[in-house]
This record gives sequence, C-alpha cells and structure tokens, in this order.
Amino acid sequence: MASRALRIAIAGLGTVGANVFRLLREENRYFEHRYGVEIEPVAVSARHRDRDRGISLDGVAWVDNPLHLADDSSIDVVVELIGGADGPALALVERAIAARKPIVTANKALLATHGFRLAAQAEEAGVPIAYEAAVAGGIPIIKHLREGLAANHIQQLHGILNGTSNFILSEMQQKGSEFSEALQEAQSLGYAEADPSFDIDGIDAAHKLSILTSLAFHCRPDFGAIRVEGIRQVRAVDIAYAEELGYTIKLLAVARRVGDCLEQRVQPAMVSKSSPIAAVNGVFNGIVAQGSRVGQSIIEGRGAGGEPTASAVCADLVDLALGRANPVFGLMTSRLSVLRPLPRDEHIGSYYVRFMVQDRPGVIADIAAALRDAEVSIEALLQRGRSSSEAVPIVMTTHDAREAAIRQALERIAKLPTVVEPPHLIPIEAL
Amino acid sequence: MASRALRIAIAGLGTVGANVFRLLREENRYFEHRYGVEIEPVAVSARHRDRDRGISLDGVAWVDNPLHLADDSSIDVVVELIGGADGPALALVERAIAARKPIVTANKALLATHGFRLAAQAEEAGVPIAYEAAVAGGIPIIKHLREGLAANHIQQLHGILNGTSNFILSEMQQKGSEFSEALQEAQSLGYAEADPSFDIDGIDAAHKLSILTSLAFHCRPDFGAIRVEGIRQVRAVDIAYAEELGYTIKLLAVARRVGDCLEQRVQPAMVSKSSPIAAVNGVFNGIVAQGSRVGQSIIEGRGAGGEPTASAVCADLVDLALGRANPVFGLMTSRLSVLRPLPRDEHIGSYYVRFMVQDRPGVIADIAAALRDAEVSIEALLQRGRSSSEAVPIVMTTHDAREAAIRQALERIAKLPTVVEPPHLIPIEAL
Repeated sequence: MASRALRIAIAGLGTVGANVFRLLREENRYFEHRYGVEIEPVAVSARHRDRDRGISLDGVAWVDNPLHLADDSSIDVVVELIGGADGPALALVERAIAARKPIVTANKALLATHGFRLAAQAEEAGVPIAYEAAVAGGIPIIKHLREGLAANHIQQLHGILNGTSNFILSEMQQKGSEFSEALQEAQSLGYAEADPSFDIDGIDAAHKLSILTSLAFHCRPDFGAIRVEGIRQVRAVDIAYAEELGYTIKLLAVARRVGDCLEQRVQPAMVSKSSPIAAVNGVFNGIVAQGSRVGQSIIEGRGAGGEPTASAVCADLVDLALGRANPVFGLMTSRLSVLRPLPRDEHIGSYYVRFMVQDRPGVIADIAAALRDAEVSIEALLQRGRSSSEAVPIVMTTHDAREAAIRQALERIAKLPTVVEPPHLIPIEAL
Repeated sequence: MASRALRIAIAGLGTVGANVFRLLREENRYFEHRYGVEIEPVAVSARHRDRDRGISLDGVAWVDNPLHLADDSSIDVVVELIGGADGPALALVERAIAARKPIVTANKALLATHGFRLAAQAEEAGVPIAYEAAVAGGIPIIKHLREGLAANHIQQLHGILNGTSNFILSEMQQKGSEFSEALQEAQSLGYAEADPSFDIDGIDAAHKLSILTSLAFHCRPDFGAIRVEGIRQVRAVDIAYAEELGYTIKLLAVARRVGDCLEQRVQPAMVSKSSPIAAVNGVFNGIVAQGSRVGQSIIEGRGAGGEPTASAVCADLVDLALGRANPVFGLMTSRLSVLRPLPRDEHIGSYYVRFMVQDRPGVIADIAAALRDAEVSIEALLQRGRSSSEAVPIVMTTHDAREAAIRQALERIAKLPTVVEPPHLIPIEAL
C-alpha cells in the first residue's frame, strides 16, 4: 500500500457505486487535507460500460471482469458494491481475500449468508473486511456498537432496519390507508421496488439483524435462526387501535439474550409512542441498543440511498487508510460463540390481540375464560361499535405471557362459534 | 507500553472515577477476551483517601499528589477525572503531555478553555488526548462525528447537551409547572446540584458545544464566541403556547456555518414536536448533525451519570489499547481554522414572540405595523382571553427574519403604552 495514497477499485456502479465514485472524486482534496491521505478510485467494473451514471470515468481503468480487480497489484482496496449473496460478489470477495486485499462492502446478504466463513478466511489472510454500509445505510451503527459501546455488554437490540417497510407503515399511520395502497405510493416514489418482497417480507431487515446480532452478542451470524414476518398482514384497523392504545406499529428487528439462548426476530410489533424508536419515521432507520453500562443508546438516520450509503463506504475507506481495522465481527472468529436460538414458544412478552366476533352475550366471557385457563392476564380491553348483523372487533392487550400460552388460548378462541376470523396477534415491545 | 496490558492511573475518584475503576475491575477478563488486551488500574489519586466509594483499592497504589501519576514510568495512561478548567486537572494534563503519557479525560471545561493549546502541546509530544466522556456522557458523539461521519462536511449541529436543563424543561412541559418548581424537583432527585448555575445557565452546554463545533467544523474551539442564555427565564405559559403551536422548548446548542462565519449559540429554542430532537426527554442528551452526504444523523442516550460516563472513558481506553488514536480535534492543529463568529444581529431564523398587552382596540394593528416596518412577516397569531382590566397575551410566530430586524421591531413595540411587559422572544429552530 502506498504511504500517502490508497488506490481503490469499485466493483458495481449502481446508485451506491456511482455515489462512492463521485464522493471520492469531489472530496479528494478534503480527505487529503483532513486525514493526510488520498483515496483515489483507479479502476471500476460494472455490467454495462456505456450507461450514463452522471460521472466521468476518465483516467480510471475499466475492467469487464470484476475478479480481475482482485488480481491487479496496483490496487490497494476492493470496494464490492455488486450485491447479492452469491455470484460475482462472493467470488470477488473470496478472490480479494486470497490476494490479501482489504475489502469494503455494502453487501448485507453476502455477510448474513457467508459472513462467518469469509471472516475466518480474511482473518487467516490478515485482510480486513469493512462493511459499515451493509447495515442501516448512512448510520454508523457498526462503529457505534463495536467501538463506541466497546465497554458494554449489549443486552438487547431493537432496530428499524428497512426504510421501505418503515415508509409504508408511516404512510398507513398518517393517512389511515391499507397496506396495498401505501405500497403503491412507496413504489411511485421510488422507495419500493417493482418486486418489493425482500423489503416488505422482512428478509432485508433480517440480513442486517444477523450482522448486528453477531457484533452485539459476539456470536456467529445465524441468519437461519431469525424468525421473520413481514408487513403484508398489517391492517389499517390495527394501526388505528395501536394509536388509541398509545402505540405505533413498526417492522422491528429484535435481538436479545434470554438465559443461554439468543432470540432474533423481525416482525411487526407495537412500541410505545413515547419511545424514541416510535419517532423514526418514513425512510429513516434507527437502532436502540441496551448496554450494560450506558443504558439505552439510540442512533438514527438515512438507512438507504446513494449518498448516505456512500458516506458509510467512504468512512470505512478512511479507517482503512488510517490503519484502523477490527476483526470482522468484533472478535477473532475462534472466539465467536454459537448461541442456541430461543424456541418461539419460549418468547415472553405482552401482546395486542384483535378478535372479530358476532356481538352476542357471553363472547367476552368465553374469550376471557380461554385466556385465564392459559394463564394469560388481560391488561386492557376495548370494544367499539355494536351490530346485530356484522362482526365487531374486540381488542385487548395482555400482560407478559409465554408465547406458547397465548397461542394455546388463541387456538381455543378461534374455535368459538362467535369468533368469525382467526385472531390477529401483534407483539408489544417494551422499550 | 507493555504489549498485552495497559496500566492506567485514575486521578479523581468521584462518581465517574469510581465507576471507571469498578468497570475496569469487573470487565478485566471481558476486555482481555474481546480485545486481547488487559486494561488494569494500577494507581489512583483523590482528595480523600478514606471515603467509602464502594470499591476496594487493594493492590492499587494510592498517590496523594495526582501530578506524581504523570511521573511514574510504570503507568501507561493517565485518566483525568478531577474536573475543572484549571487547577490540578490542567496541571496533571500538562505534566502527562510532558511525560509523553496518553491522556483520557472527561473534562469539558478544560478542553473548552485550554483545548487548543493542549492539543498543540500533545501533538508536538506525539501524545493522544481522548475525551469521549467530555461531551454527552455515554453517547459516543466524538467518535460519531470524527469517524462515523468522516466522509461528510458537517453543515449544522443541534444538541441537547445538558441533562439537568432538559429534565427541568421536560418536567415543566409534562406538569405545567414553573421553572423554580421544576428546579426543586430536579434537585430533590439529584439531577441538579445545590448551585445549579453551570447547568441551567447554559455554561456546561456551551463548554460541550465548543468541543463539538471544533470537531465538526475543523476550527479552533472558541468558547468565548458562544452566545449563551440559560433556562431561568422560560415560563410555563410559553411552554403551553409552544405545545399549541406544535413546538417543544429545549435548551438547544446550535452550531452552523453561515457564509464565512460560524454561528454558535446555547439558548432556549422551539423545535417542532415531530422532529427527533423533540423526543429527547428527561436526563437524556441528543445530537442532530446535518452532513453533506448523510443528511440528518441523530444520536441519543444518557448524557451524564457514573456508569454511562465510565462507558465512554473505557471506550477511549480500548481505542488507546488497540492503537487507535486521532488528532485531538480531528485535524492537526496547524490545519484548524479560525472562523469569524456570526454577529448576533445577522442571525436569520423564525421566532416566537409573546406580548402582554392591555386589551384595547388597535393593539394588534400597532404591533403588526412595527413588525411590517422592520420587514418582519407574521406567520401565525394567537390571541386568547379577553379582559378589560388585566393584561392579556398576544402570541405570534414569524417567518425567517434577521435578528436585527426583529429586535428593532420589539424595541418599538415595547414602548407602546398598551404593551405592559418587555416582549418574550424565543427563536424557532427548523430541524
């Protein structure tokens, strides 16, 4: 590596890649002034050479095959912005490790899927892999957890990690609209893709959560252990009831130590309107970490978009240029533990439940009896509207209960002749 | 410095010092496991040897004169937790620099007052000074600005940097109480000192702001240039009107580039209730940085207290142990600029004003005329209550105006025979 210049190659020139390139060009003198190093893009690779990206590639080598960037001895660092868990992104990262080239990547799917193996290979080769941009875009959450809260044991993490889902839920809340309508709005504004399933089904948030969990709890990333549920089933009526009860519905990523187990979930959950995470609206992301010494620590910002993500990629490049590197998941891979996933039934928490019932005498008594028999205690109960013909909602919140107990009660309640739909269950997260 | 152990001395064993000591003792094995280094307190110094601090000092050298810690060649790092801008804290830091010993400090007053000179001395000696704990307690805002947002130009900063004041304002808002009552409550809970002036008059927040400003804008800290106003004059009636207008009153620290000038203020200000900083309540601190690439970036947490502050001190120690050091204010001191303070009259922003008037025909016309003549345009106007005998409030908010213009108008209005008190002016911060 040259002493005063870091020569970097960018693989992938989509929105993020083009923004990283532009940032490095525009801020070249600023970085030199501020950090005493030049960070210079010297080579790029992308699928289509002639696409107009609003940047001039003059003076930069174009390489058709991204793998060749790893082989080029004039390149100091490979920036992988191709995306995808496998294919050329994986091949490039493996090749760069083999060539002992530091890597910066924004690829959450890759790290969630192959992170542990890549970390072990990188460690063996003495090569840093930096990935601030892989989780929550412009928010420096990786540095925050790994360095800022270095003196803490993290007890639990709550995150809003997908801006598309958060935008949709914020829209539904503000406008009282249903999911499909808010999704269309998000698509027309460019916040949701034509096929939005990765975002709205929680996969993207789960990829990110698995990385944060590893960093926070010093364990191997275990994407497969995450219980994932997206936002397609969230209904306007539940958002309205949440509001009335003092809650907001968010697609929440949660990781928590429970005894010897690790609980990891991505699902729609209710949070108190007065909690800081409830104020994370629209395309913003936010993470609340509970540290053993620091207590609640909250960080928010733009979780996606070309410029915020480029901000994170370039912060990694500055760290590399200044020789600041960390083990990939915070500890040497041999020290990362393997934590048993908490079985779903063992989750303990409070719940919101909505029942659709025929308005007959004794309905509430039947429901209450089923909950009592399962040892689930009711915290609040709302019944609105009366109708002799149509189904009416009964809404309740529970005190803390084991998930097994509440599911057992709901199964029995669902069979009551007066209950006309399967009950709608949404966990409440206290934070 | 020993290769696998960092031997540290703690000067000052108040709440923070005792917590740092306890944390290092309790987490010794954790740090060794996680970072591969031991961080070991080997010597302490404090005023009273026999005080019960809930910690055992067995096996640790007691040193009466803290300056001797700097001279002891068996000590690798000096942790200065004595406090105060001058006196033994300053003497110790200077002596540690002379002895080429890295320093960790939580001392905002020291850095705000002597920071630039100390930074230059430390740079000359090649000694790092780390001070994460000096601003916003457990919130790693120093690392966030300096490293997390490394690729950005910071355009403006807004901070709630004093937990005592924030607690008092939150109390006033929630309970409708006046300042003196909320202050008593804060004192009885231990959130405010017997002499609370440093906190409630804005001095503490201004010390912290001067440090953040230097880091964010790459300039020398200039505490004297900060316009400081505390919260003693905040009235319950203004908090109630703020609420009605969609605002919350916070003691806000603001730094902003305005052309070639730098604006730095600590004063009660109104912020939109929907802005993230409005949700920073009670003893929490929060900082919103506007970055050129990342947009709005928000970080919140406990801004004081033994354990959160110890969390920050120990994060600095981990960084030192791992060889991660930065120039004190982010850049070499020779590269820190000197920015001209923005004259007060040149501030541009919108305002809330409350007039107490006799309820006579033409009062509003007179006030409106004075504002018009000064080219201040009214955004909203509220008049409540009618009384032929008592004074009634008229409240208005303005569009953006130069401060000189609004002050000129208020001076004229104050002289109207129907206006019975000096007008109450509170700036509105858009964020």
